[in-house]
Amino acid sequence: MTTATLLIACDDKPGLVSTFAQFIAANGGNILDADQHTEDETGRFFMRLVFDTASFALDESATRAALDRLSSSIANTRFQLFMGGGLPKVALFCSKTAHCVYDLLMRHAMGDLPCEVALVVSNHEDLRSVAEHFGVPFEYVPVDRDNKQAAEDRHEQLLAAHGIGLVVLARYMQIVGPGFCDRWAGRCINIHHSFLPAFVGARPYHQAFERGVKVIGATAHYVTADLDQGPIIEQDIAHVGHHCSVKELTRLGRDVERQVLARAVRWHLERRIIIHGNRTVVFA
Amino acid sequence: MTTATLLIACDDKPGLVSTFAQFIAANGGNILDADQHTEDETGRFFMRLVFDTASFALDESATRAALDRLSSSIANTRFQLFMGGGLPKVALFCSKTAHCVYDLLMRHAMGDLPCEVALVVSNHEDLRSVAEHFGVPFEYVPVDRDNKQAAEDRHEQLLAAHGIGLVVLARYMQIVGPGFCDRWAGRCINIHHSFLPAFVGARPYHQAFERGVKVIGATAHYVTADLDQGPIIEQDIAHVGHHCSVKELTRLGRDVERQVLARAVRWHLERRIIIHGNRTVVFA
Amino acid sequence: MTTATLLIACDDKPGLVSTFAQFIAANGGNILDADQHTEDETGRFFMRLVFDTASFALDESATRAALDRLSSSIANTRFQLFMGGGLPKVALFCSKTAHCVYDLLMRHAMGDLPCEVALVVSNHEDLRSVAEHFGVPFEYVPVDRDNKQAAEDRHEQLLAAHGIGLVVLARYMQIVGPGFCDRWAGRCINIHHSFLPAFVGARPYHQAFERGVKVIGATAHYVTADLDQGPIIEQDIAHVGHHCSVKELTRLGRDVERQVLARAVRWHLERRIIIHGNRTVVFA
Amino acid sequence: MTTATLLIACDDKPGLVSTFAQFIAANGGNILDADQHTEDETGRFFMRLVFDTASFALDESATRAALDRLSSSIANTRFQLFMGGGLPKVALFCSKTAHCVYDLLMRHAMGDLPCEVALVVSNHEDLRSVAEHFGVPFEYVPVDRDNKQAAEDRHEQLLAAHGIGLVVLARYMQIVGPGFCDRWAGRCINIHHSFLPAFVGARPYHQAFERGVKVIGATAHYVTADLDQGPIIEQDIAHVGHHCSVKELTRLGRDVERQVLARAVRWHLERRIIIHGNRTVVFA
Repeated sequence: MTTATLLIACDDKPGLVSTFAQFIAANGGNILDADQHTEDETGRFFMRLVFDTASFALDESATRAALDRLSSSIANTRFQLFMGGGLPKVALFCSKTAHCVYDLLMRHAMGDLPCEVALVVSNHEDLRSVAEHFGVPFEYVPVDRDNKQAAEDRHEQLLAAHGIGLVVLARYMQIVGPGFCDRWAGRCINIHHSFLPAFVGARPYHQAFERGVKVIGATAHYVTADLDQGPIIEQDIAHVGHHCSVKELTRLGRDVERQVLARAVRWHLERRIIIHGNRTVVFA
Repeated sequence: MTTATLLIACDDKPGLVSTFAQFIAANGGNILDADQHTEDETGRFFMRLVFDTASFALDESATRAALDRLSSSIANTRFQLFMGGGLPKVALFCSKTAHCVYDLLMRHAMGDLPCEVALVVSNHEDLRSVAEHFGVPFEYVPVDRDNKQAAEDRHEQLLAAHGIGLVVLARYMQIVGPGFCDRWAGRCINIHHSFLPAFVGARPYHQAFERGVKVIGATAHYVTADLDQGPIIEQDIAHVGHHCSVKELTRLGRDVERQVLARAVRWHLERRIIIHGNRTVVFA
Repeated sequence: MTTATLLIACDDKPGLVSTFAQFIAANGGNILDADQHTEDETGRFFMRLVFDTASFALDESATRAALDRLSSSIANTRFQLFMGGGLPKVALFCSKTAHCVYDLLMRHAMGDLPCEVALVVSNHEDLRSVAEHFGVPFEYVPVDRDNKQAAEDRHEQLLAAHGIGLVVLARYMQIVGPGFCDRWAGRCINIHHSFLPAFVGARPYHQAFERGVKVIGATAHYVTADLDQGPIIEQDIAHVGHHCSVKELTRLGRDVERQVLARAVRWHLERRIIIHGNRTVVFA
Repeated sequence: MTTATLLIACDDKPGLVSTFAQFIAANGGNILDADQHTEDETGRFFMRLVFDTASFALDESATRAALDRLSSSIANTRFQLFMGGGLPKVALFCSKTAHCVYDLLMRHAMGDLPCEVALVVSNHEDLRSVAEHFGVPFEYVPVDRDNKQAAEDRHEQLLAAHGIGLVVLARYMQIVGPGFCDRWAGRCINIHHSFLPAFVGARPYHQAFERGVKVIGATAHYVTADLDQGPIIEQDIAHVGHHCSVKELTRLGRDVERQVLARAVRWHLERRIIIHGNRTVVFA
């Protein structure tokens, strides 16, 4: 079955569900999943439609054109159409810590992530063998105080060369520059090892130990230029106790990190997420 | 804002979302929430629509008539329309154990359950003061081996007299008869104190202790004539350990029971549930 | 069975478990539960011993004297002995929000909390009927900008008159003064409706909504003069989504609050908690 | 720091904690962690002691001899002493499904499992490259209807040759024979992909789908000759909904399986588990 996914955000008014559903039906598409939510506080309308395109009369550009016409009479519309084309291509950025990279590559190998992992980029050589084991090209791009711009340029060059559509910072221990953040807005997911907004910045497990918390957590979010402040996609926690050293918190946290990151990446790839200001709508 | 909720189950075919959304739009309704799911395995289409009826052109009976006409061209359609009318009226059945009754009455008193709790029925006098504290009529209907049919008749009489639309067995320690189960099919929710299908029947915490499980659970389900076999609405668990006696399991389980039951009751009252064979679709 | 509980915190050195276990055995006590943990980072030794006192040779004061002698050769020892005496007496402070008060009183009524709830204190009259339903004296102590000291004096007078050993701030919407915090250090538990250290202070659910978090939480902690900064006893969370308004977050949060608070109160009453700087050891 | 761990199960009587703690102290050991629990229902005493052996006066065989003497005056004593020696050696049995094997090998590579993974055994060749990537010998031992005893003999031969102390059935899709179960009693852990006792046997996710459960789970247990009936070590669950096909349940279940199995293996390796009839005491 070939399907397309349409994400719509606009100001609410009567008849919108009908308008979009009718558009698809009138052109021979069959809706397989529909989720719609209107936010009271803001009057914003959000919808996700997945439809069978086997008998759909329009190709991608005709669909876009038709949606543009439909949108012209609806206020503040933003739609995203995912139709045809191959699997999205994903790049994983990492440093020395292996668990998130292993986890994503293993899930991909088992057929759990609807994408092609096309590239692993790291500022260290440590995880080359992991990427190679899974048959994914590995690119070593060292980063230090003096070559940040050159490294970023190299990143962009690699991402372009591989046709990457989503960058996943899978415990990448470098701060990415504001230019990169802007260009990859909504297409770059980071995993932070705390339940944000608690413990922003460095060494969150040390902060958690000091504060004596009884839960630790992890947060997957879209990257923005403000460190650890971007729209949150998913969070989860683990219960901890007085017997947990920082090392133990770190160990327990790894399980949370990789699950939270995997869920966020999966939802992004399944086109379940609409960014709404600094929040996200996730049709899970 | 006055709203109506429409639940639809039918065989899938192209255009259904459009058909129903258009019907609402054409009559001046505004859809506030739409959830739709088609099950691959069975080809069944399920949808929940909540719409603003402030400007809706049809009254309830006209809406029903129109939906009947719409349905005539769709296979195996079953719709439920909840439109106008007051709050649904709920009866709680209980015995001696107080936690689920307290919990539901407290939630109701705090405005968390969109219903009127109109009646508490018990085969013991123990919880009379609880019902009275919350201002709910309490009816004592003793049940023993010899008066089962008379008790059931009395139950039906009370439920009719109070216009009850939903019966909640809130740790009611009597088996309800097959006639009652049939008449209240899809309108009678029980809480069983295990994660079904494990530990069907009596004394599930004792069974759990014997088996040495590391989680205990609770299951809210629609009642059917087959004991503990009805469609499951919600389940949850608590982690337990070797230090937990049966008494401790029972204590920990009470927290799970009341939360699971409250969620199930709330979802039923919010018209989020469609029964599908012996399973449920819950648009949560 | 009559039991005593001994909590010990001291600097570690070889032989401590033996020293204390032998002391109890030598005097005819039988240890029923022993938990011991030494923290690597600080070299602090923590132990909890519960022992059967049926054949124990010493009364409480003789036991204290003996423990003082034992402690004299151990560095920085702090022990707490709970032996004989009746049930600890607890006061609940509340305002208008009922769920935590109902929850604790219901648990107490079901025999789940090893204490006597001796008093409910509130700055509003709203929950008087709740206290009275459970047969607990209710004291109305209004608090405003100008009578804070008088109110605190009245609180102390009531707590003294009722022989209170633990104060539980069960969604009490007034800040308690630093003098009160000092006098009740380690004996006053508050429930804060966020997963601290996130969302300190007022309206945490509003803060959570604004930040777009995917989990909300609650934290039970000992009260100190620094608002929401005291030693954390227990935390838990609930998963939330984009469809949750502030009102919905508040509703979901109530379930977390009352469970977290109940666990913390129970652990305190079972003498499972040792305060260690701004953290807690909880032998759960 | 070199440590030893002592696990004791015996009939309770006064003075036992003291007896064992004193024995360690008298010989110059320092207890680092002590956990003790007496089960009311059975009067059984369970204790775990971890002690620093840097200054301990006895070697392993002298310690065993001394413990034998101590035990002679205590009823039904069974102790396990883990002292000196290298890391325990572990064999992973698997078939074609990779996630549990990857997970354990990755955790091991990150230093999270206190063991040496010395061998991967499979009835298929599929996971050879996974074992080899992690530098672990892989042995292919095909099993079919006619060679079961030969395969079991080969297994025993391999386990003996590699000095294996723990066998982990990491989604090994063959039933192991009763002789093997007996010989490896308490030293062979299986992961079953349901929350036992629900859904014993084959295709538990299909069973779960049919029953319409709202949670799925996984269970790690010691293997016994009765299929899926052995002592449970750990269980956990994931919440699922009506939108989950069997394939989706399987995918979500994999995350639960690998975490539950990893926790069970870790606890076994850390000598936290005492088998007690068909239940387990886990000093977690």
